[in-house]
Amino acid sequence: MFQDKKPSKTDLKQLGEFGLIETLTKNFEIKKPSTIKGIGDDAAVLDYNQKHTLASTDLLVEGIHFDLAYFPLKHLGYKAAIVNFSDIYAMNGMATQLLVSLAVSNRFPVEALEEIYAGIQLACHIYDVDLVGGDTTSSRSGLILNPTALGSVLKGQEVYRSGAQPNDLIVVTGDLGAAYLGLLILQRENEVFKVNPQHQPDLSPYTYVVERQLKPEARKDIPPLLRELDVHPTAMIDISDGLSSEILHITKQSDVGAQIYAEKIPIAPQTVLAAEEFNISELTAALNGGEDYELLFTISQKDYEKIQYRPEFAVIGHITQDKGAYLITQDNEKIALKAQGWNALKK
Amino acid sequence: MFQDKKPSKTDLKQLGEFGLIETLTKNFEIKKPSTIKGIGDDAAVLDYNQKHTLASTDLLVEGIHFDLAYFPLKHLGYKAAIVNFSDIYAMNGMATQLLVSLAVSNRFPVEALEEIYAGIQLACHIYDVDLVGGDTTSSRSGLILNPTALGSVLKGQEVYRSGAQPNDLIVVTGDLGAAYLGLLILQRENEVFKVNPQHQPDLSPYTYVVERQLKPEARKDIPPLLRELDVHPTAMIDISDGLSSEILHITKQSDVGAQIYAEKIPIAPQTVLAAEEFNISELTAALNGGEDYELLFTISQKDYEKIQYRPEFAVIGHITQDKGAYLITQDNEKIALKAQGWNALKK
Repeated sequence: MFQDKKPSKTDLKQLGEFGLIETLTKNFEIKKPSTIKGIGDDAAVLDYNQKHTLASTDLLVEGIHFDLAYFPLKHLGYKAAIVNFSDIYAMNGMATQLLVSLAVSNRFPVEALEEIYAGIQLACHIYDVDLVGGDTTSSRSGLILNPTALGSVLKGQEVYRSGAQPNDLIVVTGDLGAAYLGLLILQRENEVFKVNPQHQPDLSPYTYVVERQLKPEARKDIPPLLRELDVHPTAMIDISDGLSSEILHITKQSDVGAQIYAEKIPIAPQTVLAAEEFNISELTAALNGGEDYELLFTISQKDYEKIQYRPEFAVIGHITQDKGAYLITQDNEKIALKAQGWNALKK
Repeated sequence: MFQDKKPSKTDLKQLGEFGLIETLTKNFEIKKPSTIKGIGDDAAVLDYNQKHTLASTDLLVEGIHFDLAYFPLKHLGYKAAIVNFSDIYAMNGMATQLLVSLAVSNRFPVEALEEIYAGIQLACHIYDVDLVGGDTTSSRSGLILNPTALGSVLKGQEVYRSGAQPNDLIVVTGDLGAAYLGLLILQRENEVFKVNPQHQPDLSPYTYVVERQLKPEARKDIPPLLRELDVHPTAMIDISDGLSSEILHITKQSDVGAQIYAEKIPIAPQTVLAAEEFNISELTAALNGGEDYELLFTISQKDYEKIQYRPEFAVIGHITQDKGAYLITQDNEKIALKAQGWNALKK
């Protein structure tokens, strides 16, 4: 379906570890003033001055987090990077450096790894991040990618998951559920392809949801926008496991409850259409689908007017004194939220 | 041989990802003043003030870097941590925080992961490092550990691989080659065990070399000692792939050459004895064995008297203007050093 048609295949063994690192990273430039020393020594050297350093890591495993049958390698590299940047933005900081660890079996030629790094490079370029280190080794089976993002935030500007207060408003960026529908479509087309390899899928009606799965973006724009609007969220998290799971993280760590309203949850029309096709509720996709990489945050009510006309944000509910986190449906039913989200350990 | 005899086996699926992280990290304390926020949010928050931040990552893959048939899980956790601390010390800094990513197949019960984390915890305790983050997920086969260490160094105190100058002295800490002999012994005993499971190996004659393999230590003592002695190395690297490979890293990155003297290379008597048993040269073990986690550095000749009586150090050669890196044997033969060291990609 998305196979690499390039004839060029260089065996990993030819290059050796150091040759491989050199091959993969030679086109990466160092651009951040905070990067004193990047790749090529025992450790990267970074200078954050009067800012706090942020560090986050996410492990991506073939067959668990992605399937190369329908996930192009370049997109994989891109997504692996932005998933980690997203965690830094969720602290209200800016991502500045990236380390990438990679384990691959010998079935991958060097060119496949170059594809992955091309994706990482594109992400570093777009998100203004320096690649400063990593480790490359072989695995007995499959591909494992473990990027670690570093970032910085002005002291006092960092936002934890634990600061939500009763009556705070709950806000999300963008729209939710699309990435999960994109996944369902890719999986379906892959099944068709397996039965009939001549089949050329027409993904055009699903461009939006497929892109949200294959090339998600992290909300780099939000921390500076919040600063511009003079809004300091009381709690923030990125939506990687689905809205339910993330709301529960905030309520648990803030020791509060929450009510969100079904009709307020932003869902794109393309997501609704795709959900109809699969005969699932788009709300389920938004609540439990995950991988949207939007930001979920809470703000004091007094900040409401600062964000109310901004197209980036949707207010979906509020924090409550009573523990328990609930979805209020359009029929005014009250349903307890569950972290049914995507759980890699249950696969 | 080293099997876990504990009857307690909790299925990973019972806990789920967040439950697992909580189970594994609940006994870790935060002790460093630079750790503002550790595990439990999107990213760790660290404060390094007027120091440079150091970041380093090393990936350890089952079947490539370790074999659980003879590598106890607790030791594995310990080693995974110190291998990363070692990279920070090799920059002349101190390790302060650690993130650990872990992928495991479902064949591992929770108790096995707790063993790994017990080793990580012991390393964090001994090396005075805070665990501040990580990611835990499943893999389709085997165990993968990817720790990322963060550290700090006073601005201007950092030491790169690239600063060696002609006539500088080449110095190593401790002794070399033991970890490789320890590996050979463990592999041999494991083969015997496979044929005869009743066999109880007597490892006592090999305690030193086996410990150097199973529970290596990183040279946390060296950066403060160098400062105390008022010695600022011109270049430094840790010895993870064998002395030859590390010398070549320094000469390549410093654009110089080197001569080291066989008789000056520090090798423990137990290493010599074990090498005799395997009918290999102890020098080969020191040059190409790797995993010693000692430090290799270069100093200006004027600093010689500051270190000459210190038992921690051995001067093994000097940097030359002519490129090329050579070993001078006891017979005065000149042999070009090769990076034959351990290369995970060639396995």
